[in-house]
Amino acid sequence: MNTRIDINCDLGESYGAFRIGNDARIMPYITSASIACGFHAGDPITMAQTVHLAKKSNVAIGAHPSFPDLMGFGRREMQLTSEEVKNYIIYQVSAVAGFAEAVGMRLQHVKPHGALYNMAAEDGRLSMAIAKGIHALRDDLIVFAPRKSELAKAATRTGLRVAYEFFADRAYNPDGTLVSRKHANSLLQEPRQVVQRAIEAVVDGIVPDINGKALDIGEVQTVCVHGDASSAVKLAAALKAGFVKADITVSPIGSFI
Amino acid sequence: MNTRIDINCDLGESYGAFRIGNDARIMPYITSASIACGFHAGDPITMAQTVHLAKKSNVAIGAHPSFPDLMGFGRREMQLTSEEVKNYIIYQVSAVAGFAEAVGMRLQHVKPHGALYNMAAEDGRLSMAIAKGIHALRDDLIVFAPRKSELAKAATRTGLRVAYEFFADRAYNPDGTLVSRKHANSLLQEPRQVVQRAIEAVVDGIVPDINGKALDIGEVQTVCVHGDASSAVKLAAALKAGFVKADITVSPIGSFI
Amino acid sequence: MNTRIDINCDLGESYGAFRIGNDARIMPYITSASIACGFHAGDPITMAQTVHLAKKSNVAIGAHPSFPDLMGFGRREMQLTSEEVKNYIIYQVSAVAGFAEAVGMRLQHVKPHGALYNMAAEDGRLSMAIAKGIHALRDDLIVFAPRKSELAKAATRTGLRVAYEFFADRAYNPDGTLVSRKHANSLLQEPRQVVQRAIEAVVDGIVPDINGKALDIGEVQTVCVHGDASSAVKLAAALKAGFVKADITVSPIGSFI
Amino acid sequence: MNTRIDINCDLGESYGAFRIGNDARIMPYITSASIACGFHAGDPITMAQTVHLAKKSNVAIGAHPSFPDLMGFGRREMQLTSEEVKNYIIYQVSAVAGFAEAVGMRLQHVKPHGALYNMAAEDGRLSMAIAKGIHALRDDLIVFAPRKSELAKAATRTGLRVAYEFFADRAYNPDGTLVSRKHANSLLQEPRQVVQRAIEAVVDGIVPDINGKALDIGEVQTVCVHGDASSAVKLAAALKAGFVKADITVSPIGSFI
Repeated sequence: MNTRIDINCDLGESYGAFRIGNDARIMPYITSASIACGFHAGDPITMAQTVHLAKKSNVAIGAHPSFPDLMGFGRREMQLTSEEVKNYIIYQVSAVAGFAEAVGMRLQHVKPHGALYNMAAEDGRLSMAIAKGIHALRDDLIVFAPRKSELAKAATRTGLRVAYEFFADRAYNPDGTLVSRKHANSLLQEPRQVVQRAIEAVVDGIVPDINGKALDIGEVQTVCVHGDASSAVKLAAALKAGFVKADITVSPIGSFI
Repeated sequence: MNTRIDINCDLGESYGAFRIGNDARIMPYITSASIACGFHAGDPITMAQTVHLAKKSNVAIGAHPSFPDLMGFGRREMQLTSEEVKNYIIYQVSAVAGFAEAVGMRLQHVKPHGALYNMAAEDGRLSMAIAKGIHALRDDLIVFAPRKSELAKAATRTGLRVAYEFFADRAYNPDGTLVSRKHANSLLQEPRQVVQRAIEAVVDGIVPDINGKALDIGEVQTVCVHGDASSAVKLAAALKAGFVKADITVSPIGSFI
Repeated sequence: MNTRIDINCDLGESYGAFRIGNDARIMPYITSASIACGFHAGDPITMAQTVHLAKKSNVAIGAHPSFPDLMGFGRREMQLTSEEVKNYIIYQVSAVAGFAEAVGMRLQHVKPHGALYNMAAEDGRLSMAIAKGIHALRDDLIVFAPRKSELAKAATRTGLRVAYEFFADRAYNPDGTLVSRKHANSLLQEPRQVVQRAIEAVVDGIVPDINGKALDIGEVQTVCVHGDASSAVKLAAALKAGFVKADITVSPIGSFI
Repeated sequence: MNTRIDINCDLGESYGAFRIGNDARIMPYITSASIACGFHAGDPITMAQTVHLAKKSNVAIGAHPSFPDLMGFGRREMQLTSEEVKNYIIYQVSAVAGFAEAVGMRLQHVKPHGALYNMAAEDGRLSMAIAKGIHALRDDLIVFAPRKSELAKAATRTGLRVAYEFFADRAYNPDGTLVSRKHANSLLQEPRQVVQRAIEAVVDGIVPDINGKALDIGEVQTVCVHGDASSAVKLAAALKAGFVKADITVSPIGSFI
């Protein structure tokens, strides 16, 4: 039984005058921030401000690298060579690491963004390119990945630690993959239900799948909340309170993995 | 009298399918490479390849940050706030530093590019923003700057070391500034003349200005050659050979500053 | 005395997942929309949607070209050659014109954005480059410009029509220029006051300057409201209602210039 | 038997200081230029210069739209929605059309670039989005497409004319598709052979496939030469001379389709 959990959120997704998210308001309820690196969002000022905010809130910092697709917010699949992916990862992760070092912090983790994350989950070659890019920089960085994903496998094989990620507000298929956002019922809206599921997932490694059957999702080490929805702050607060009440310690993944 | 000199060149200025420069051919003749960081040139693959090339040639690595202006190759003046400049510097320098670390090297220096370099030479506020961005990352980075520039002053004031840069193939005004590229005679073409001037500059700290009068340019620590001209390779080779013949040791600035 | 007025607003300033403005809600109260062209905001889907929205609301369409500066939302000064400016204008205006033609409309006007508009107001060379770019496409396009600006002069000299623009919610200096946004009191917040001023400006060509003295601003043909403030919709509605009540016909500039 | 042929080339693929191609030297030997629109290459100055050059050489002008991927030169597959594709086409084609109109010319055709062209050849949905974007602008634009492609079908179904394109220097598979560039022998280097093949293709609609068997490729209306190879100019010259000698009239596709 797991008694510790990390709560992560994608942040720093503004870009110049374009504002996205509720970064300042969600910080108190999370323990790890995955920060956009300029390829899908996140100009340097936004990155600096987000890192500063994270430091003030004792939130650990990670990089949130993406395909180079500002126009599509990194949500569109691109077919890249392994060399391209590896070097795009080095570029983006290094940039966030620099902002962390500039305030005396050390980068904790890397979580690929959007289409890159989704494709990597199922594509071993792509995942290996991501893992190699991260490993080339530092072998003590933690990779966020779904439990049964190719990304988790590639990171492990490369010698990196993996934090298994659970999506508290997403429905799961019987095979353990996420129900596509295109389907109704893919998103769970009711905070009480989301919190209850998350506690079960953390404590027992089991959640009801889309059909209501018990699904063994294995050990869960970090729970993802989304920062851009208007309800995000409330949900994050409820989640943290729920964990605390259930005697689950909420702290950055780097402190217990 | 100075008996040591660094030869620097701006490299890695290709961008994807767009190829600029003769990086591989010029490497044997230089000791410091200033590498484009993605804002005016330099996609991540180009950055990785240039760093790799520098390592093979025992050339020290620096960052060559720019205004965010790919369309104008960073040659156009932009009016930015100090906060923008500082964070654009952190972003770009961190990215190059990451590629250096990925091959086991350590970033040696920073040289601003194009309009950013030219504006900084005369603008104390802009220079201070650049210096603060560099210093926020590491206080042992060396800043390349013209001797009497605001950039040199700001770097020194911030606690950074400065390498005074001499432009071997550019004519100088009587006040020590460079003759604008718009003027005829601003560019020296004759290799023998360029080499002779560079040796005088390094040994005596004196060059003839555009009118032929002796100009006191003070101590010179790094000599800049340009990588994009077709004649660049020959010139760099002649320069290095000339220094060696004049008993001036050619080595990376970080080894003797 | 003027009995007709155009109400214009800058629209289509979202970019992919980055949303800015209240385009759909403000459309009913304006007669001309200046649409971002991709350089400071406005991806092609946003452009298509904004043009579609304008058509439904019987709002005339203009282009809102900018410096190429997505990261700075076109608000930062850039030093460009006349050839660069002229061709950036042709590129952006043509793109918006294409979207208009795709729904059977015809581009009515051009209004430069942000730093380009502000610099052009005082820079004859820059204004001439803008005017030449517009004129190269069509000589019946209308240019939006402050009355006593270099842009108005250049457009007139080139043979283009000019719509003199009044900023309803901005304070004016005694010399007829706008009070900088950096000053307190530069922005008028009180709707009743804004409407009253606008009516006076349209009917009499006179407004109180920042010191309360009567300022002769000459003939006014289009009044600008801003689309991104949360209060924008209310203000636009009040303005339109105020004009109607004062027997001033509100219609697109192209219908009466 | 066909007695007329168009020779097309992709041009205007420089971007600011990044220079690609031999546009001025190849112009005398072609009759249609497909001009990059800014998404994979082609800043507005390059576009203006290329259009100017085409006009001087009596070469007809087309748009060469791409995925938004400057870093990858539009050569990487992207998964976009039909709405995205349609509007990216409208944006890019309108921009080139504007430059053409600015010099008193009228856009003749559209040829998708790189990965967009290759994917469209086999993807009916993607091709329909492209065709709809073109048709929304003007129904008399000609679409360049491989003969048996989905793009040719979609264009025809939408009511657009199609110019069937033959690649003179590429080997063909027995099914009429191009041999991938990854294979040796995919590129024909010997000018005499290339010219001979092109004449056979135009006159008889037949070429030897990669195995040397006669392949029926049907009617050919435009022959593509590539502008970026150093041998391109020679090849284009040989091709034009060969056609003339074989009594095939070389003229822009718009003059005889």
